[in-house]
Amino acid sequence: MREKFTAYIRQLQDTITQRLESLDGNATFKQELWERSGGGGGRTRVIENGNVFEKGGVNISEVHGELPETMQNYFGVKDSKFFACGLSLVIHPKNPFVPTVHANWRYFELYDESGKVVQQWFGGGQDLTPYYLFEEDAVHFHSICKTACDKHDKSFYPKYKKQCDEYFYNSHRGEARGVGGLFFDYLKPYENRTNEQWYDFVTEVGNSFLDAYVPIVEKRKDIEYTKEHRNWQEIRRGRYVEFNLIHDKGTLFGLKTNGRIESILMSLPPYVQWRYDYHPEKNSPEESLLNVLKSPKEWV
Amino acid sequence: MREKFTAYIRQLQDTITQRLESLDGNATFKQELWERSGGGGGRTRVIENGNVFEKGGVNISEVHGELPETMQNYFGVKDSKFFACGLSLVIHPKNPFVPTVHANWRYFELYDESGKVVQQWFGGGQDLTPYYLFEEDAVHFHSICKTACDKHDKSFYPKYKKQCDEYFYNSHRGEARGVGGLFFDYLKPYENRTNEQWYDFVTEVGNSFLDAYVPIVEKRKDIEYTKEHRNWQEIRRGRYVEFNLIHDKGTLFGLKTNGRIESILMSLPPYVQWRYDYHPEKNSPEESLLNVLKSPKEWV
Repeated sequence: MREKFTAYIRQLQDTITQRLESLDGNATFKQELWERSGGGGGRTRVIENGNVFEKGGVNISEVHGELPETMQNYFGVKDSKFFACGLSLVIHPKNPFVPTVHANWRYFELYDESGKVVQQWFGGGQDLTPYYLFEEDAVHFHSICKTACDKHDKSFYPKYKKQCDEYFYNSHRGEARGVGGLFFDYLKPYENRTNEQWYDFVTEVGNSFLDAYVPIVEKRKDIEYTKEHRNWQEIRRGRYVEFNLIHDKGTLFGLKTNGRIESILMSLPPYVQWRYDYHPEKNSPEESLLNVLKSPKEWV
Repeated sequence: MREKFTAYIRQLQDTITQRLESLDGNATFKQELWERSGGGGGRTRVIENGNVFEKGGVNISEVHGELPETMQNYFGVKDSKFFACGLSLVIHPKNPFVPTVHANWRYFELYDESGKVVQQWFGGGQDLTPYYLFEEDAVHFHSICKTACDKHDKSFYPKYKKQCDEYFYNSHRGEARGVGGLFFDYLKPYENRTNEQWYDFVTEVGNSFLDAYVPIVEKRKDIEYTKEHRNWQEIRRGRYVEFNLIHDKGTLFGLKTNGRIESILMSLPPYVQWRYDYHPEKNSPEESLLNVLKSPKEWV
């Protein structure tokens, strides 16, 4: 499974970066290969200052070795070895009418002293963060998520949609980061579902990503916008930063275990604003976004 | 002491905001009074879009009541009542040649069931974050800090200067937030020093703040700057955000105990940038700042 999923995310990284480059029409992804001193490494691909994409990264990593002490406590094991690989992406478009998107698909194995696998699981998901809300875009994104889930189990979409709303939540603001999507973790083999079947599910979601996001970008990327639209986007990007630096477990884990800083923080938006106690006008499009973020909706 | 220190910080807030307003010459502080549901409240004063100060806050708060559970664990007490008051300020100037400054002075009391004080301490400090380093400015700031300390104990400056370097450190970047200043906490009465004497020390530092900062602002506020200087300032402000949201105990404590969000996060700079893996040019002023931040210096 290690080899199989690693091969999958390599291929998926190529597919996604090629499609986004052709969509952008100007900027290309710059690649950086890096190695981890404890074992493994990654392939970071970053796009900046494009026609459509202002900043974004589509990164894969494949790391292994001794499980760091902080993680031993977290998983309740000791002196264990581990393997982890995954693809992680965040795309910040320039046009405030095009939503930011985030996705991640990952696989984890823990070993005992003899090298036998003692735990293995998949995790990940994909979620959308609009600055101006087109309800049909949220419906489209969630429909693709639901279709991918339903092929495997009708219970998956409602469950992982709810987990996404709960996870990407700025509790200190009382609002969701965006309009959600899917979030799942610790997908382990159990009586009715094998590791292979989880692989099939997670790759189904991975394969749905471009269908979920690209049509939204195509529809919104040429809408004209003003400095005011852009200000609102930059203020909302501030909330994105707050979530990633205060609440996101992946980011904090990476920072505390000496991950590659620039690969971890490539998720931060390029231009960001914080204004004191900013409130959009009553009955404005900006306010209606906030209303939706305050109480997550069922989109499909 | 509660009343005495509360009266002090009220007066100091007036003194500081008046001086900064006259220095700015355009913008004024907007005041907001707020109440805390568990007891107490605060007086937030924020300045925005001034000639000199792009965003800043000088806030006081005076809160009391049942000690929140997270804090009970932190202090190793239970079912305790508390009192806390303090002044906290962060000033982000517009001109990249004028440093950002932060300061805080606070007093804390814990009570047993009968209402008797069982613990009491002062804390605080002041520190400077330049974007372009004028060594004479760092020397000036630290000299004022040292003079204030030396009046009370020759050991204070070296000790609290070191604690400042250690505290305002972005460990995930391997660099200091700025050029430091003073940081002290848990200043409790002991055999040779009474609570009154700690009050005298902390207010000495508080009274030194304007002398430490204002001359630097006056000297640098009219230097001409380009878009490139401004870009560098905004990139470095990103590091300020990272420190405050990832490492700063005060910010995280406020967020996790449902403090007033806008008063806590008024410390965040107005315009901020994150670029992927940005490095300044060799032998540039930008690079020489980084070199200093990587290994804290003795300024006086």
